[in-house]
Amino acid sequence: MGNFKTLQEACYVANMQLPKLGLVVYTFGNVSVVDRELEVFGIKPSGVPYDALLPKDIVIVDFENNVVSGKMRPSSDTKTHAYLYKVWDQIGGICHTHSTYAVSWAQALRDIPNFGTTHADHLTQDIPCASPMSDELIAGDYEHNTGRQIVDCFVERGLSYKEVEMVLLGNHGPFTWGADATKAVYNSKVLEELAHMAYLTLQINPEAKRLKPSLVKKHFERKHGEGAYYGQ
Amino acid sequence: MGNFKTLQEACYVANMQLPKLGLVVYTFGNVSVVDRELEVFGIKPSGVPYDALLPKDIVIVDFENNVVSGKMRPSSDTKTHAYLYKVWDQIGGICHTHSTYAVSWAQALRDIPNFGTTHADHLTQDIPCASPMSDELIAGDYEHNTGRQIVDCFVERGLSYKEVEMVLLGNHGPFTWGADATKAVYNSKVLEELAHMAYLTLQINPEAKRLKPSLVKKHFERKHGEGAYYGQ
Amino acid sequence: MGNFKTLQEACYVANMQLPKLGLVVYTFGNVSVVDRELEVFGIKPSGVPYDALLPKDIVIVDFENNVVSGKMRPSSDTKTHAYLYKVWDQIGGICHTHSTYAVSWAQALRDIPNFGTTHADHLTQDIPCASPMSDELIAGDYEHNTGRQIVDCFVERGLSYKEVEMVLLGNHGPFTWGADATKAVYNSKVLEELAHMAYLTLQINPEAKRLKPSLVKKHFERKHGEGAYYGQ
Amino acid sequence: MGNFKTLQEACYVANMQLPKLGLVVYTFGNVSVVDRELEVFGIKPSGVPYDALLPKDIVIVDFENNVVSGKMRPSSDTKTHAYLYKVWDQIGGICHTHSTYAVSWAQALRDIPNFGTTHADHLTQDIPCASPMSDELIAGDYEHNTGRQIVDCFVERGLSYKEVEMVLLGNHGPFTWGADATKAVYNSKVLEELAHMAYLTLQINPEAKRLKPSLVKKHFERKHGEGAYYGQ
Repeated sequence: MGNFKTLQEACYVANMQLPKLGLVVYTFGNVSVVDRELEVFGIKPSGVPYDALLPKDIVIVDFENNVVSGKMRPSSDTKTHAYLYKVWDQIGGICHTHSTYAVSWAQALRDIPNFGTTHADHLTQDIPCASPMSDELIAGDYEHNTGRQIVDCFVERGLSYKEVEMVLLGNHGPFTWGADATKAVYNSKVLEELAHMAYLTLQINPEAKRLKPSLVKKHFERKHGEGAYYGQ
Repeated sequence: MGNFKTLQEACYVANMQLPKLGLVVYTFGNVSVVDRELEVFGIKPSGVPYDALLPKDIVIVDFENNVVSGKMRPSSDTKTHAYLYKVWDQIGGICHTHSTYAVSWAQALRDIPNFGTTHADHLTQDIPCASPMSDELIAGDYEHNTGRQIVDCFVERGLSYKEVEMVLLGNHGPFTWGADATKAVYNSKVLEELAHMAYLTLQINPEAKRLKPSLVKKHFERKHGEGAYYGQ
Repeated sequence: MGNFKTLQEACYVANMQLPKLGLVVYTFGNVSVVDRELEVFGIKPSGVPYDALLPKDIVIVDFENNVVSGKMRPSSDTKTHAYLYKVWDQIGGICHTHSTYAVSWAQALRDIPNFGTTHADHLTQDIPCASPMSDELIAGDYEHNTGRQIVDCFVERGLSYKEVEMVLLGNHGPFTWGADATKAVYNSKVLEELAHMAYLTLQINPEAKRLKPSLVKKHFERKHGEGAYYGQ
Repeated sequence: MGNFKTLQEACYVANMQLPKLGLVVYTFGNVSVVDRELEVFGIKPSGVPYDALLPKDIVIVDFENNVVSGKMRPSSDTKTHAYLYKVWDQIGGICHTHSTYAVSWAQALRDIPNFGTTHADHLTQDIPCASPMSDELIAGDYEHNTGRQIVDCFVERGLSYKEVEMVLLGNHGPFTWGADATKAVYNSKVLEELAHMAYLTLQINPEAKRLKPSLVKKHFERKHGEGAYYGQ
């Protein structure tokens, strides 16, 4: 059993962002951070309130869902994280919350339309809402299958997890990821903002249209394209 | 007259959660904690603002609504608490608030539909909205009858107060309970979140459907079933 | 010129509640406190931000709108306050804000329906929305006429300012009052809550009905009737 | 290269207001301050989070978009600011945010109607929503053309930038300005409030009408007209 202090600390810091950003109440969320060399990830323990959480409580788990280090039981969503790390080999962190607006779109079973440049600054596509799982998948290895359902949705729709770093799982809520846990949490906050704005947009104008392709392209590329000129 | 310091302290701490959780303004709420052996409960005094409340102000009342200890008048809702403690003999705490979204569903006279796993993590049923009382019951022993109306609603609908730990009283607002006062307050916060999300869900998709039985079962059971694996 | 320190202090304290309660941004509101014996009132100076306000800045004005003490110009709404103090001789404080939900009902030109017991705990009536003034009244002594418009609305509708301690002025916003400035500010916060809940109620159920007379009566009387038993 | 400490400090202070006022998350906004004599402006560096920002990070840029002083890359929106300063020669500060309600109206491609005196206290007109740019303008010098699109909208509609100190850019979000950066930021906050209230007004009453001309005139003039009597 190695020394996972750095991984635990990074995972702890990312988890503690969730209540500060208003994305969770009680224990409604979890963040994990992966170590690609060791093929393990740190994840929040199950059912522990944020204000009682300590870095040493972070559980270290391998990609086959075995606890490698830690005295607590890992998040009940651990198998979903493991599946995503295994299949999507370039993500460094994953975040799951029950944030209000994102969950509401998931409950409404609706993709979040790309209505403006705040959205296009982050992704060119609508934010996908994956269908709820079949009864068979639910009755089976549920959390593992949750990961499958997300990945299958991306395959079916031809989406790249490197561009679209967020998804809604129908009747459940948001999962986000990124190069590291900080980016995964950032994406959860951005998703909540986009979900809020898209909701208001449709209330103000039920006929609101997506922004046009030229504008989507411009905004996405000035942040993420070859000649990106945003940031330092 | 005994020493009720522990009961008062527990009741005080639970009451003070309400303003912190954004569930009350001014004096719009109250929490009680029961001592089943002594058959008494501690409850917030009537009309005292939270920032002026002290542990010693908590009033001790028996199940026949007699003040056993305390110099202040107990909450005007005391008889409702007493009735619920008497009839539902396995609850340890009760919470009543006028939180914004829960009250709005109560005013709309609508049950809150089970739209997603955030809801199903806590209960399998819709959150019931009990009908407003008849004129006769209102003109009678009002707060006692409030308790009756809640219990009658559960009997009529075949609901278990051990599974469904929350109710809306039509045109009034939410009452929640649980194994102890902490759980009762937790349920008030969860109810407010569920009420908020269900409201948004219907705004985004007026045709939104409840989640399917297999998913309800799965989420409720992973937290509360025989083989529950959530938490430590 | 007398010593108005007590009046200034009371007025200052009440004004400073407004930003804390989330009822104002910048300088969008004002509270006054009357001294019935001296027939003067203290009021917030015009256009001074709350975080720069000091007790000594409170301006003392008589019922004919003359500044009795103070170096600053009083609130631009001063004549409205003076008019209300003169005509309604049992109020001790007045509060005016541009709080979000109350203003929105005023802009919608709609009375706020009495949908539940939170409302009925405070008043038996709908919260009236007075019509915008005629062009003639607007072109005349505008702030004086604002007071007139409010009083005329109460006369026309047969409302008592002692029971209904709040009004919306159409296309403008809320005015509230009470036995003292603390109660006037309390009423502004309650009004904002009621406006928020009534808005949500209609979104959830566009056919929502007012609560029935027996329930209105019960709740109002347990707080304000002969045999009131709420509070200490 | 001169000493721009005063300009940097003013720009820093104005930028730091944005998170405090709830108008931005992460790096979603920027404020600039102009020095009309030197024909340069200070602006936030690109992609720097507010809690890491220091006065010395503020970049000094001339009207032709050349960095005059500073080690960091200026905001990606710099050319928009430069264009507006050049064409509108009496503004002293500019603010751009992605605040929730203002963005939602921009995404809905709707002007914000003048529904009440909170609005009329600040401007007599609806808040214009400029059309999204043509594909040609988007493909060209995008941020420069963003400035052009805003100015062209004001020319076409016959609006004065001295009276109407705010605009929505369709599918994007709000830009505001004023005599100095403090006023520009103030206008962003006021715009967000007006956007929120107008949204609620239409939800409460879809047939809501603008307030009448006599009332618009009265409120605007008591704050901004010849005989203005608001403030000290």
